[in-house]
Amino acid sequence: MKRTELIENIKRKKSFLCVGLDSELSKIPQHLLKFEDPIFEFNKEIIDATQQFAISFKPNLAFYESLGVKGILSLEKTVDYIKKNYPDIFLIADAKRGDIGNTSKMYAEAFFKNMNFDAVTVAPYMGSDSVTPFLKFENKWVILLALTSNDGAFDFQYIQTPSNEKIFETVIKTSQTWADENKMMYVVGATKANMLADIRKIIPNHFLLVPGVGAQGGSLAEVAKYGMNKDCGLIVNSSRAIIFADSSENFANVAHEKAKEVQLEMEKLLINHNIIS
Amino acid sequence: MKRTELIENIKRKKSFLCVGLDSELSKIPQHLLKFEDPIFEFNKEIIDATQQFAISFKPNLAFYESLGVKGILSLEKTVDYIKKNYPDIFLIADAKRGDIGNTSKMYAEAFFKNMNFDAVTVAPYMGSDSVTPFLKFENKWVILLALTSNDGAFDFQYIQTPSNEKIFETVIKTSQTWADENKMMYVVGATKANMLADIRKIIPNHFLLVPGVGAQGGSLAEVAKYGMNKDCGLIVNSSRAIIFADSSENFANVAHEKAKEVQLEMEKLLINHNIIS
Repeated sequence: MKRTELIENIKRKKSFLCVGLDSELSKIPQHLLKFEDPIFEFNKEIIDATQQFAISFKPNLAFYESLGVKGILSLEKTVDYIKKNYPDIFLIADAKRGDIGNTSKMYAEAFFKNMNFDAVTVAPYMGSDSVTPFLKFENKWVILLALTSNDGAFDFQYIQTPSNEKIFETVIKTSQTWADENKMMYVVGATKANMLADIRKIIPNHFLLVPGVGAQGGSLAEVAKYGMNKDCGLIVNSSRAIIFADSSENFANVAHEKAKEVQLEMEKLLINHNIIS
Repeated sequence: MKRTELIENIKRKKSFLCVGLDSELSKIPQHLLKFEDPIFEFNKEIIDATQQFAISFKPNLAFYESLGVKGILSLEKTVDYIKKNYPDIFLIADAKRGDIGNTSKMYAEAFFKNMNFDAVTVAPYMGSDSVTPFLKFENKWVILLALTSNDGAFDFQYIQTPSNEKIFETVIKTSQTWADENKMMYVVGATKANMLADIRKIIPNHFLLVPGVGAQGGSLAEVAKYGMNKDCGLIVNSSRAIIFADSSENFANVAHEKAKEVQLEMEKLLINHNIIS
């Protein structure tokens, strides 16, 4: 997907919501277990119920890999279902991959050629040649980890460098030389919304993928205040707060309502920031 | 596998060789393509031909994931084949995973519960709670990325910190508080063999997984000189130089000879360092 398309979708849907498909078998409504592929049935209902309020879906690979071959089948079916029925969805593989060049190339093929994701999250520790193979596919995106939303983020990401910046800032600055805002986004955790202001000084134009709103405790208004730019520039993820809001047979309707609530809040923020009228 | 078992295997086999199963479909001998599962046929022959000279095998997940469900099947069959026929093999999932706590937990289950790997490589960027879920399984190991063998290693891993050490040294020091040498190893690239001396000052007792000998240009004698400790403390990986040494129907015999060459060199180094007599 091109950047212009993504921005158009945000304006048309009045939303910058990404629904995280962290579809854990032990957490989905138990009546779905009677189906041959409960995870796919769950995803399908969640996708149908929330897609009108979302511009993106983000399966986290761990939840599918943990089920072995069955899980990969559920994932492939989910990707196909979204791309066939809702081609305007920006589809993110939350995989946090990264390896030496020839190996990252194989991961890139897995996500972009075999599975038709639009973007993949990549870990920066191994540097340029672990990231650039993902950048060779047209209209596909790297979403590089910069500042994550977990406690462990404080272990290494905040370390001061000799240039008097933090490691996550060095990651953002260095990676600017690998690709621009048409191919690269960054993960910035919502639990540190005030850091978004500093990050916007380095990358005013890039999209940021913001996890951690909802179950992880971040505030949407704060994220918009510090992180929104003239194109919106934000994709905010919510997983558990939407997909596991209810565990009865009515779960999809509840997810629909939860996604709608978030979309309405996002619509107000987009209006307040003069992105839509 | 326990640390004592691993050390016994090294002494008995007079080897610290890990054979990397980077089994790329376009690189395996073409006569294998007639089989229903060419990757598994390739792995089986490579494993049978080299296991007497190796203490470890290391499938790199990217090469399996890039083939989708078929690739995951090949991987599962490979894991089962090794564990059934050669239970003394230390089996490493080279996956370089790492995510927030509840997600790393799912990856840990994928590799340690569903697939019976002994160890998994983990990326440190997201810090403690992205690593510790992998440490909760008995006799299973985390192999944390410290200093990798690729060019991109220079982007972030060598950055100086306020404590006047490099980021990869901080990663090693900080992670000492998460687990000791009975649960944790580190990836240290062979292309920087002299750095091993500095690393040994921080972690004299830990095992190091050393990729980059062979195709990536590192020297085995240098690695042993700077990195070997009283228990050996090294697992040295070779992938392409062994598994793709020949592409004819004779490939397994050639791999056997290549692995034997490496083992003989390792035996000399183990004798020189008084680890075996």
